[in-house]
Amino acid sequence: MKLTVLIHCPDQSGIIRSVTTYIHQQTGNVVYLDQHVDKQAGVFFMRLKCEFEQELDLVDFKKGFATELAEPFDMEWDAYTDEYQPKMAIFVSKYNHCLYDLLSRYNSGELSVEIPFILSNHKDLEYVAEQFNIPFFHIPVTKETKAEAEDQQLELLKKYKVDFIVLARYMQIVSPKVIDQFPQRIINIHHSFLPAFAGAKPYHAAFERGVKIIGATSHYVTEDLDAGPIIEQDVTTVSHTHSVKDFIAKGRDLERIVLSRAVQLHVARKTMVYNNKTVIFS
Amino acid sequence: MKLTVLIHCPDQSGIIRSVTTYIHQQTGNVVYLDQHVDKQAGVFFMRLKCEFEQELDLVDFKKGFATELAEPFDMEWDAYTDEYQPKMAIFVSKYNHCLYDLLSRYNSGELSVEIPFILSNHKDLEYVAEQFNIPFFHIPVTKETKAEAEDQQLELLKKYKVDFIVLARYMQIVSPKVIDQFPQRIINIHHSFLPAFAGAKPYHAAFERGVKIIGATSHYVTEDLDAGPIIEQDVTTVSHTHSVKDFIAKGRDLERIVLSRAVQLHVARKTMVYNNKTVIFS
Amino acid sequence: MKLTVLIHCPDQSGIIRSVTTYIHQQTGNVVYLDQHVDKQAGVFFMRLKCEFEQELDLVDFKKGFATELAEPFDMEWDAYTDEYQPKMAIFVSKYNHCLYDLLSRYNSGELSVEIPFILSNHKDLEYVAEQFNIPFFHIPVTKETKAEAEDQQLELLKKYKVDFIVLARYMQIVSPKVIDQFPQRIINIHHSFLPAFAGAKPYHAAFERGVKIIGATSHYVTEDLDAGPIIEQDVTTVSHTHSVKDFIAKGRDLERIVLSRAVQLHVARKTMVYNNKTVIFS
Amino acid sequence: MKLTVLIHCPDQSGIIRSVTTYIHQQTGNVVYLDQHVDKQAGVFFMRLKCEFEQELDLVDFKKGFATELAEPFDMEWDAYTDEYQPKMAIFVSKYNHCLYDLLSRYNSGELSVEIPFILSNHKDLEYVAEQFNIPFFHIPVTKETKAEAEDQQLELLKKYKVDFIVLARYMQIVSPKVIDQFPQRIINIHHSFLPAFAGAKPYHAAFERGVKIIGATSHYVTEDLDAGPIIEQDVTTVSHTHSVKDFIAKGRDLERIVLSRAVQLHVARKTMVYNNKTVIFS
Repeated sequence: MKLTVLIHCPDQSGIIRSVTTYIHQQTGNVVYLDQHVDKQAGVFFMRLKCEFEQELDLVDFKKGFATELAEPFDMEWDAYTDEYQPKMAIFVSKYNHCLYDLLSRYNSGELSVEIPFILSNHKDLEYVAEQFNIPFFHIPVTKETKAEAEDQQLELLKKYKVDFIVLARYMQIVSPKVIDQFPQRIINIHHSFLPAFAGAKPYHAAFERGVKIIGATSHYVTEDLDAGPIIEQDVTTVSHTHSVKDFIAKGRDLERIVLSRAVQLHVARKTMVYNNKTVIFS
Repeated sequence: MKLTVLIHCPDQSGIIRSVTTYIHQQTGNVVYLDQHVDKQAGVFFMRLKCEFEQELDLVDFKKGFATELAEPFDMEWDAYTDEYQPKMAIFVSKYNHCLYDLLSRYNSGELSVEIPFILSNHKDLEYVAEQFNIPFFHIPVTKETKAEAEDQQLELLKKYKVDFIVLARYMQIVSPKVIDQFPQRIINIHHSFLPAFAGAKPYHAAFERGVKIIGATSHYVTEDLDAGPIIEQDVTTVSHTHSVKDFIAKGRDLERIVLSRAVQLHVARKTMVYNNKTVIFS
Repeated sequence: MKLTVLIHCPDQSGIIRSVTTYIHQQTGNVVYLDQHVDKQAGVFFMRLKCEFEQELDLVDFKKGFATELAEPFDMEWDAYTDEYQPKMAIFVSKYNHCLYDLLSRYNSGELSVEIPFILSNHKDLEYVAEQFNIPFFHIPVTKETKAEAEDQQLELLKKYKVDFIVLARYMQIVSPKVIDQFPQRIINIHHSFLPAFAGAKPYHAAFERGVKIIGATSHYVTEDLDAGPIIEQDVTTVSHTHSVKDFIAKGRDLERIVLSRAVQLHVARKTMVYNNKTVIFS
Repeated sequence: MKLTVLIHCPDQSGIIRSVTTYIHQQTGNVVYLDQHVDKQAGVFFMRLKCEFEQELDLVDFKKGFATELAEPFDMEWDAYTDEYQPKMAIFVSKYNHCLYDLLSRYNSGELSVEIPFILSNHKDLEYVAEQFNIPFFHIPVTKETKAEAEDQQLELLKKYKVDFIVLARYMQIVSPKVIDQFPQRIINIHHSFLPAFAGAKPYHAAFERGVKIIGATSHYVTEDLDAGPIIEQDVTTVSHTHSVKDFIAKGRDLERIVLSRAVQLHVARKTMVYNNKTVIFS
């Protein structure tokens, strides 16, 4: 059995030694350990993988961890078994490139998740869901029906026990009602190199400014629009020969890859959030 | 004799044909031609190199060009001989990395310029000027003396017939008085991926925001601070393991290379400015 | 009507002027022109787009071009109308990532081609063809049946009037019999940064060598294995933390994007081949 | 007092726990720990930084470490204090770009080393050494005098207690006589993306092959030419518009930055070598 443990706590002496000793006592063997100290904030972060030759009683392990480590060191922490495949809902609108990218990776076995459903405020991409045999829910959103639509969304998310949501170019602002239920568990792709060109029409804005590089940014969604903790970014060069349309086409390739990388980091439990920033373990 | 011709004018039929025909009539041979049309703005840009086997009377060539082409096509244009080495003044403050980079390229023959002098508001980098045997002028700038200091700068720029100025981390805002004398001929390096983190302390701001990529931007200086036409940008990845100090160190390498590339593009007459954007010929 | 003209010929005086003059005589307007001179080889390359307000008689245009330009300047050339969508056959084996990438771009309208069929030596990817409603032909290949299999392939290629072939991780060596029918019209993706690690198992070889960067290369297929003219390459960083499996996973993302870019360059008629190298117009 | 500890040993249970416990017993506090397991080879690697509030007796610390940890776990290891600045000799021939880059970083305080001397088989760069006030030794090398020249080199290296050597475009093959004295302590820069284009004239070879990306590689020197463990690589794009001369100019920028990064990794004790590959800690 394999376990991934994520920890953060006030920086102090003896954490690594105590944790590795506890795991040893539980007959586990540490096979990976990465840690980071944010000196400014005084916070210690650790990601650790351990293997247990004998069957592990996870409840007991966690109870002991809580008493012997989490409490004295004041830790926020969690432990995940490798077997569990998190349930990922995908929200889309009309663009299919990110959706296709996620689904083809899912189909190839690159993405260790279950996809209980795809949800959209439009019907345009229903055919893609059908191609991949995944349930599709159409929940239109207007100013007037937004509250009600989000209730329906929450109901579905609950019913299907969704662990996290991917906004694969979902062109609606998600309200706090949903965000609060999925803190650091909604992943968005923004089509610019944030914080440059936050908001709508970033490729147009980039074109206007005459930049030589455009980007895409994947981040956890917070109430502050386009300002959540950044998980992954990438860029590509552009020149005066490119029109806004070219920016958009080049950007699609960025959006695809940046979103997929962010999702994979999240699924592999390699992300931790602190102070609106991420620690991304390697 | 080699000539580089830069043209922009309203887009219309027959420009390439007319220009190449004129050059042919002058017994020249076009050895390179690159053009671009900004369809939104309706503007045609062209960069062209031609060789003349016989001695060319440049004054005559220009006169004919003006009458037969520039006037009917409503062109802004210029023609440069390859022999002339432009005179480049370098303004610095206390950081030496961009200065060293420019001077070592200059020394290796990578940069086809003359450097009549280095100017600074501090004495810190006088030793570098001495290492490379280049005149150094120290003109301190305070709020009170700024106007006077810029007069002294302008005097030196005039006296040494400076063609363009490179701000190699010159930590002073250049006022319109100087900019107006050197339109599109002052090159600055900004230590961020503009328009993200314009203004002071961009590395600190980038660190605070938790970006995964930092950049540097070289642009022509306009009255609008950090908002001039972008010549060149580049980026590098950062992670949670990097402190602000690391950002600054990694950024130095970007600043060096981005500024040097921009200077080389300018010197090679590969840049044109229109609508606060650049066309960069290859 | 829009026309794209590709030319290469011995470098000599007057080409641009003559071509633009001819197009003007045909009541066409040059809207884009890019040229390149390979000085070592003494060859001139040009890509040109022109628009005709009146209906153009393409046969007449070509006849005149041949007589007035191609013959005197000793040109290899062709002219393509923008309306024609080339027919692209895709050959695959068992990996689906490049196939999915091409098909999702095709579906999104990013790729201006027709896809008459997908062909494979295995049945594994038939389901993908079905998802996208594209005919799938299964032609197994063994040492003994290879000649016969290629006859079947050629028959299909002829029947469907295929213009060019994309080997989307087709794990068979294509023999001269097929290559000769499709010179510079078979595009392969090799999973290394050629010429490093040509041949089989490049990720394993890269891992063994301990490189810090891996790549992918798309090239036209020639009889010399993995040595054809390179169309596009890209790379990504790796480190000691990555296993061969990680190399392969990271490589998949490179292969996808590099192959798609190469296909798009080919479709847009932006590639020319000379001396086993490509000229790639922007 | 700060200590950096580097360890590699057969992978086994309990290493992290035992090491962190030992450091705790010595009243030290682990402030950074990074480890890596090469599963194929069954080798465990660790880099660790610890601080000691009280004065540490380094000899005692090392003695205890050897007995309690290194022996039972069969470790290869070393411990370095942060105060010591390694002595770096620079070997050059005629190109000055890498030398200038190293020296300007040294001058800016970016490089925590002492530079006892610069050595060359030519006199061309003596002036650079003079600019930076560093002793310069001219030791010509011919086929006949090579053995003798290397004896002189070894004498200088010994006299100045040199810790490691940087070949900053030193155009001579270093023989085993010198390599054996500086195993994993001679850093070379090769002007290609190794293993592509090993040997002489790599830019010419890259140009001939028509690659779209060129690179530079910094590696530890072994007896096998251009085949030592790779420390750092980087690449840049090229196109058909670039001549060999352009490749060389673009390559210079790569060589500079790749060599400097490799040197900095070495100086920071972030490199370990195993099986002709490097582990590069972050």
